[in-house]
Amino acid sequence: MSSKSAVSPAISNEDSKSHPVLEELRMPFSRSMIGSFFQEQPKLGNQFLEDALLQSYLRKHLPPLVLEQASRDLERFGQRIVEEINSLGRECELTYLPQLQQYDAWGCRIDRIITCPAWKRMKELSAEEGLIAEAYERKYSSWSRLIQVVKLYLYSPSSGLFTCPLAMTDGAAKVIETLGSPVALQDAFKHLTSRDPNQFWTSGQWMTERKGGSDVAHGTETMAYPKPDGTYTLHGYKWFTSATDSDMSLTLGRMVDEQGHIIQGTKGLSLFYLEVRDSKGQLNGIEVQRLKDKLGTRQVPTAELLLDGVKAMRISPEGRGVASISSMLSITRIHNAIFSAASMRRIINLAREYASKRFVFGKLIKDHPLHIQTMARMEVEARGAFLLLMEVARLLGLEETNMATEQDQHLLRLLTPIAKLYTGKQAVAVVSEGLECFGGQGYMEDTGLPAMLRDAQVLTIWEGTTNILSLDILRSVIKSQGQVLSAFFSAVQVSYIAITQLQVAKNLHNM
Amino acid sequence: MSSKSAVSPAISNEDSKSHPVLEELRMPFSRSMIGSFFQEQPKLGNQFLEDALLQSYLRKHLPPLVLEQASRDLERFGQRIVEEINSLGRECELTYLPQLQQYDAWGCRIDRIITCPAWKRMKELSAEEGLIAEAYERKYSSWSRLIQVVKLYLYSPSSGLFTCPLAMTDGAAKVIETLGSPVALQDAFKHLTSRDPNQFWTSGQWMTERKGGSDVAHGTETMAYPKPDGTYTLHGYKWFTSATDSDMSLTLGRMVDEQGHIIQGTKGLSLFYLEVRDSKGQLNGIEVQRLKDKLGTRQVPTAELLLDGVKAMRISPEGRGVASISSMLSITRIHNAIFSAASMRRIINLAREYASKRFVFGKLIKDHPLHIQTMARMEVEARGAFLLLMEVARLLGLEETNMATEQDQHLLRLLTPIAKLYTGKQAVAVVSEGLECFGGQGYMEDTGLPAMLRDAQVLTIWEGTTNILSLDILRSVIKSQGQVLSAFFSAVQVSYIAITQLQVAKNLHNM
Amino acid sequence: MSSKSAVSPAISNEDSKSHPVLEELRMPFSRSMIGSFFQEQPKLGNQFLEDALLQSYLRKHLPPLVLEQASRDLERFGQRIVEEINSLGRECELTYLPQLQQYDAWGCRIDRIITCPAWKRMKELSAEEGLIAEAYERKYSSWSRLIQVVKLYLYSPSSGLFTCPLAMTDGAAKVIETLGSPVALQDAFKHLTSRDPNQFWTSGQWMTERKGGSDVAHGTETMAYPKPDGTYTLHGYKWFTSATDSDMSLTLGRMVDEQGHIIQGTKGLSLFYLEVRDSKGQLNGIEVQRLKDKLGTRQVPTAELLLDGVKAMRISPEGRGVASISSMLSITRIHNAIFSAASMRRIINLAREYASKRFVFGKLIKDHPLHIQTMARMEVEARGAFLLLMEVARLLGLEETNMATEQDQHLLRLLTPIAKLYTGKQAVAVVSEGLECFGGQGYMEDTGLPAMLRDAQVLTIWEGTTNILSLDILRSVIKSQGQVLSAFFSAVQVSYIAITQLQVAKNLHNM
Amino acid sequence: MSSKSAVSPAISNEDSKSHPVLEELRMPFSRSMIGSFFQEQPKLGNQFLEDALLQSYLRKHLPPLVLEQASRDLERFGQRIVEEINSLGRECELTYLPQLQQYDAWGCRIDRIITCPAWKRMKELSAEEGLIAEAYERKYSSWSRLIQVVKLYLYSPSSGLFTCPLAMTDGAAKVIETLGSPVALQDAFKHLTSRDPNQFWTSGQWMTERKGGSDVAHGTETMAYPKPDGTYTLHGYKWFTSATDSDMSLTLGRMVDEQGHIIQGTKGLSLFYLEVRDSKGQLNGIEVQRLKDKLGTRQVPTAELLLDGVKAMRISPEGRGVASISSMLSITRIHNAIFSAASMRRIINLAREYASKRFVFGKLIKDHPLHIQTMARMEVEARGAFLLLMEVARLLGLEETNMATEQDQHLLRLLTPIAKLYTGKQAVAVVSEGLECFGGQGYMEDTGLPAMLRDAQVLTIWEGTTNILSLDILRSVIKSQGQVLSAFFSAVQVSYIAITQLQVAKNLHNM
Repeated sequence: MSSKSAVSPAISNEDSKSHPVLEELRMPFSRSMIGSFFQEQPKLGNQFLEDALLQSYLRKHLPPLVLEQASRDLERFGQRIVEEINSLGRECELTYLPQLQQYDAWGCRIDRIITCPAWKRMKELSAEEGLIAEAYERKYSSWSRLIQVVKLYLYSPSSGLFTCPLAMTDGAAKVIETLGSPVALQDAFKHLTSRDPNQFWTSGQWMTERKGGSDVAHGTETMAYPKPDGTYTLHGYKWFTSATDSDMSLTLGRMVDEQGHIIQGTKGLSLFYLEVRDSKGQLNGIEVQRLKDKLGTRQVPTAELLLDGVKAMRISPEGRGVASISSMLSITRIHNAIFSAASMRRIINLAREYASKRFVFGKLIKDHPLHIQTMARMEVEARGAFLLLMEVARLLGLEETNMATEQDQHLLRLLTPIAKLYTGKQAVAVVSEGLECFGGQGYMEDTGLPAMLRDAQVLTIWEGTTNILSLDILRSVIKSQGQVLSAFFSAVQVSYIAITQLQVAKNLHNM
Repeated sequence: MSSKSAVSPAISNEDSKSHPVLEELRMPFSRSMIGSFFQEQPKLGNQFLEDALLQSYLRKHLPPLVLEQASRDLERFGQRIVEEINSLGRECELTYLPQLQQYDAWGCRIDRIITCPAWKRMKELSAEEGLIAEAYERKYSSWSRLIQVVKLYLYSPSSGLFTCPLAMTDGAAKVIETLGSPVALQDAFKHLTSRDPNQFWTSGQWMTERKGGSDVAHGTETMAYPKPDGTYTLHGYKWFTSATDSDMSLTLGRMVDEQGHIIQGTKGLSLFYLEVRDSKGQLNGIEVQRLKDKLGTRQVPTAELLLDGVKAMRISPEGRGVASISSMLSITRIHNAIFSAASMRRIINLAREYASKRFVFGKLIKDHPLHIQTMARMEVEARGAFLLLMEVARLLGLEETNMATEQDQHLLRLLTPIAKLYTGKQAVAVVSEGLECFGGQGYMEDTGLPAMLRDAQVLTIWEGTTNILSLDILRSVIKSQGQVLSAFFSAVQVSYIAITQLQVAKNLHNM
Repeated sequence: MSSKSAVSPAISNEDSKSHPVLEELRMPFSRSMIGSFFQEQPKLGNQFLEDALLQSYLRKHLPPLVLEQASRDLERFGQRIVEEINSLGRECELTYLPQLQQYDAWGCRIDRIITCPAWKRMKELSAEEGLIAEAYERKYSSWSRLIQVVKLYLYSPSSGLFTCPLAMTDGAAKVIETLGSPVALQDAFKHLTSRDPNQFWTSGQWMTERKGGSDVAHGTETMAYPKPDGTYTLHGYKWFTSATDSDMSLTLGRMVDEQGHIIQGTKGLSLFYLEVRDSKGQLNGIEVQRLKDKLGTRQVPTAELLLDGVKAMRISPEGRGVASISSMLSITRIHNAIFSAASMRRIINLAREYASKRFVFGKLIKDHPLHIQTMARMEVEARGAFLLLMEVARLLGLEETNMATEQDQHLLRLLTPIAKLYTGKQAVAVVSEGLECFGGQGYMEDTGLPAMLRDAQVLTIWEGTTNILSLDILRSVIKSQGQVLSAFFSAVQVSYIAITQLQVAKNLHNM
Repeated sequence: MSSKSAVSPAISNEDSKSHPVLEELRMPFSRSMIGSFFQEQPKLGNQFLEDALLQSYLRKHLPPLVLEQASRDLERFGQRIVEEINSLGRECELTYLPQLQQYDAWGCRIDRIITCPAWKRMKELSAEEGLIAEAYERKYSSWSRLIQVVKLYLYSPSSGLFTCPLAMTDGAAKVIETLGSPVALQDAFKHLTSRDPNQFWTSGQWMTERKGGSDVAHGTETMAYPKPDGTYTLHGYKWFTSATDSDMSLTLGRMVDEQGHIIQGTKGLSLFYLEVRDSKGQLNGIEVQRLKDKLGTRQVPTAELLLDGVKAMRISPEGRGVASISSMLSITRIHNAIFSAASMRRIINLAREYASKRFVFGKLIKDHPLHIQTMARMEVEARGAFLLLMEVARLLGLEETNMATEQDQHLLRLLTPIAKLYTGKQAVAVVSEGLECFGGQGYMEDTGLPAMLRDAQVLTIWEGTTNILSLDILRSVIKSQGQVLSAFFSAVQVSYIAITQLQVAKNLHNM
């Protein structure tokens, strides 16, 4: 009946004079015209094929048969990442974030953690690809661990953070293996290392409590009441529990004797194994108090848990809880380094791609000298991190197949915390620099780039902050009476000699 | 009628045996028990009173009367920040983020940007506190600018990012002043520098387009059609427009002559003034295409705008658009440095507070040597940034009151981009380190800490990335035929001599 | 560098042939053209001035002085509703819905219910307008209650559901007055009936538990433990507690004696008074378990509450809890009828407005006979509901000022539940019909219309479903040995005679 | 380090006296105790097996072989609904509602409508179950339509509103069939009636524009420009387009001749066929302006569409657009009646279930006489609606297989709009009453019950409001010169005689 002039194309007389034809001929129904220039987007290629350093490392170190078989698998996996996994990973953040439903409509407490389908699909994929299994099947002997690490390195930035539960799963498998795979845990171990999506389990690692943070010795208030059948009932409050949607978990607790006494400090702590749900799917004495609202890793359901009567099995000797988790910590810290190295590689590859498509100030940004310098500096950091990671993985592989010399073991002990702390710091700096390479676009969440910074920040905090790790290194020096350092210096010397010889050889060749 | 046993406290026989009394005596209705330890929270004090360096700087440099008056105001303002402003600032992110309503229920395009009440309150507060006015009233002569900068420095981390529109408002006021305050803009200038909340205007700065980013010379596609009355009609698409809820804006456009011809490159660009809404509150030929989804600064409504017939006034000479905005860029870059320096100061103060309350590994973390070292390194960065900022503000104050020597002017030209680029980089690193000082809590959004990292990342990107600024510095060196560098080196020498003399004097005194 | 043709206005050759000029002349930047017709929107007028029936009712019944004073106030209030209150009411639903924050960032349980500023403003407005006070100040003697009801009737559909806490507040004030305003409750009463926004309190009414719903006698599991000082400690679980952001509450509990015994059924129940927070602002032994996710009334924070050690005062004689709340129920049921009658009036007024602006099938819809019939039927329902409400309010006013005859009291007893049940059912039907009057627009939430249906549905459920109320009516018939019916029939007869006489008189006059 | 007493179980001395043991023995970590009574929830059974009236209807009317085959399929389908489909349907509303992404991160307009996986799964299921195919394959001859209707009747309340796109898909298939399945549309028809999830298409029906609503004749502003190849280019704005994620659509447009002239009114309208995306997945000249925010049917992506150069094919003769959609409207109105009848059946079945589990006032609510009466009244409405629906389906089946007498056709013409309007009104009233049967729980969204009311309200509005349908009935009476009424009365008479005879026979038998 009536028309509202405010939104109609009200043209004043003056306008009509200056460009009358335009306005009069406009269709009454036409889309908006927003210009013709649209920046071409950076594209993700096969990250195995594009990674010359990774390929040359493998060629140099792997036995030929292993190299052939592994390369074929890695190339295929690299392709699967581009075509299938990468978009799933984005979905994990975009579709919807984990939600907690504490009650059903009728008032029953249910504590259901709702995760998106892509997240569930990642669990299946991880099994299919043997992302945990690879390391424990040892079909490539001492190289199995390194090959697993390489797969995780390729997978990580496309995984929608599913590498977080995988890290803890790997750690749990390692603990069980280290404990000599006791009969009672063989079933769990099979689940953790299964390639069958229907059988595959992930594990949580519930260590942190409000009081102590990294100081588990003094901060663990969880109490374990013994039961006549030899199992325990846990009561406590876990402050950060990542991947709360896992199937099982390892956790620390303080044993309570008949008189209700406990032992304070490290000596009071034992390690416990628990399954999150019973055979009917009911939570095992666990209440999910809330999900954590984190800067990054938002796809991972991290929660605060109240343990009230959790049925658990003690799996370490009494009072040896802290000692028993050290193998787990080594694994998760290596996972942390994987994520760090992979994040740097990914942001650099994307930035390089973009630099070949973005044209400003008269040329592609890849052709601006200052930009080349910036990229080169990032590249150096990323390469160093990668090679350090490979070395740790190589040494771990040797250790796990009983092929490590004493020096290898010292080196592994020293380099594991170093790799964690150093690559974590690098990752924040390089990813931040990487965002800058995209200008304002690097700050826009819908490009997917800012998530890389939000996620990277956890790498300096999770599994021990930089300072906590520094102290751990000091501890290893003291405990080994300096042997870890000696191992390091002699390894460096050997490398230095090797490099020098190589250069001499090259120079000779070039002459 | 029926009861569901799954959630009732079903106690098995075994349980009863081990601690029967407990369960039986539980009240049928009781809250959950989640332990007794709760970490004491870091508290924010009066940031002026707690900032010894700031106070000593002012004491050392300000004339006594200015010092007395300014200190009283800053102490009061510091208190207001703690008691009133800081929680408002948090509200800006927590209550709800800016939303865009493009249509009303009946299909009319309205493009309403909805911001939360706390954000609107910040605009009033900014006027009341004269956060822009201070610099233009010049009641402290050449120290006015520095005192404004100090107020902004205190305000910034509690402002809920309202310093972003203030930066652009300050820049716009500066441009108008620089243009000699033409009659047509006197009214706008009064609004921008008003202390009356009902009169106070903020200004946008719509520069970036999809094509060019920082390269406005080649990237600006917006066209300005002249109208018989001497005004212009703008058509174009602005890709990042911060603070789109502002009252006016400055923008670049390319003039179209009668034959439809335009001039490419810098020479084609002129600067235009526009009001966002007409006297009836209708948008001035602007369509808000979408709000940007940013990593941080989420409180600021940043948008993509389609300009379709915007009525605008040319305020630069023809083709002098880029030159005309250089004074604006200086101002906004200084604002960037304010935010950087202030972010470092804030995270350090909070981390120090926390270190005196958090007890782990047998002592407060403030008593762990490694933590002391970490804090000390952060402190050094923050102090350097602060002093650089003060120097730039001091020089700008001199220039604005015609008291700057030629050397001062060279120094100001050189230090402005340096301050922006260097403090931006520092801020990301120091804030990231600062989060780590809180362990896992530094990663939890509800502490308010992660937002500081998300916001800091923009500091390296906004108003020119580090490399863009580096090139600007080169340009200043070339254009001044090296005089900016000479000015720098002689200034450094003077300082060095002064410091040396001071130390000699101290040593003599101590003898 | 490159342009993406997909979104550019790619014109095929064929197109160009058919209307070439159009496309070529399109500006590269222009807004979308979406046609020129936009339906004019229905507007809300002063609902007092537009309500001829209300005005004629007041003219007919009120004493002249009361009429004059009240009319002036109602006209002013009607205007305030249009200009200020109505948009606030919309904001209560649009800005953000109530949220529950159970923990602070550091793990402390806080159970903060966050409501939007507009909701808080409504509390102030309610005090300013004396929406409760009016009824208890009795400045218009027996007409005070009716005038309060009329104010609420005008306010209700613009109140953003703030009438919900007001209903319970009114009920609580009534209970206290009925109990003879014991000294211990005088302070609370002053707060409830204050016109000072800083003093004004709202009250909750925590009756419903999971087990019983309306069957409080058998469903109330809350236990009250006596304390030596004569107060009580409550333990229980309240399933629906509306307006959980109130200052105080009344609630039922079952007293536990020294031996832990309780009395089942009605006789075991007493009424308790409690304040929601202590003097430091801490919750009084209350945990908010969750907010309810309701069909409508979404602005009202309705919650499930765990009472664990709530300090409370018994205010009814022992075992007289159910009897003591009957006066409260009468009040809240009348409030329910106010909302019902007001909803019908509002949707009809809006539909009538719209009918005078919407043109289809060749005329305004107000001129389509079928639409006139539909509107007329709605109008009849609304008028009947209004007059029934007025009669109940008039009778209550008489009773409250000791001016009610025995017959008046019987009538009030009978009509209160009838008014609640009947107008509730009417409201759902009339509002549903009203939405249909707007065609598809009646189904769009952004018109604000669907919320009226969502809210109306609660009117048949809250304060007793239709069947619960029907049984209450039966109870009143039995208890009064039929006198409530006699009272009804004689009242009807009197009315019938009056009407007949009126018609005879009119006929005579017309002859 | 410090503990916060506010949340610890601070027990005053007085408390300790009254029940000291309780508090002291509380575990430091224990879940909340919220009582032991939890209402058993109503459960959904196989809705085919539980529907005695449906089964008896089929037994009475279907030929034995058809009965046997259909019953087997319906029983299976009924089971699949309980076990698989019903929870998917809930997911469609709970997981996430449709979202519109208008731009990608780089500024390209994409207009992607994001629907949840459960919604996509429903499309596959609909194909698998032949929910459209059944009616067009005609394997049960004239009973095919009725059997399809029965399947949809069972499916509807569990479908998460996927019946909405199915209704329009059915309507589109019907239009194509009615037009004699022109060659150009055979492919589309195959897609619409496919049982292969990969081939199955849904269709939209884009009729409503801002100006006209149901008055398409005067309200349609969409213009169709002819192209040399015989196709058309559409320009217009569609105000409500349900199921915008469909593959194709039918729409009305007004043809523009070479001189730019159009014909106003019905005679100017033709019907057009279009595909929503081209072979590359790009939208066919369509911009999605916004998604509608509806009271109910929130799972269905309803949008406003700007048509700007949509490539379309005219499928009706010129000016016969309105006539051509009449067959479509008949189908969609029958779908509306299916939803209405099914909603009533579902709410009644759930309420009956609940009545056998909810115990208040001394007995199960199923044993309270007043509740029995309420349920009985609802049942009568639901049965009437069901039988009316079956009769319409039966008649349509006859017509579609050329087995309808003239009287059948008159009856079908009359009963179709009656069934739509009458069952729509019933559905709102019965579902509203049904919610009341659950008390407060009927108002809680997490029970899934309120959604039934929100959805039901559309049934009186969609496909013509009650008054629009009433006028359509009048039109059918006038156009048939009263024959549709004669047909009705003689049909009623026959039924009456049959019923009377049946009762006489029964009486005889009982004697």
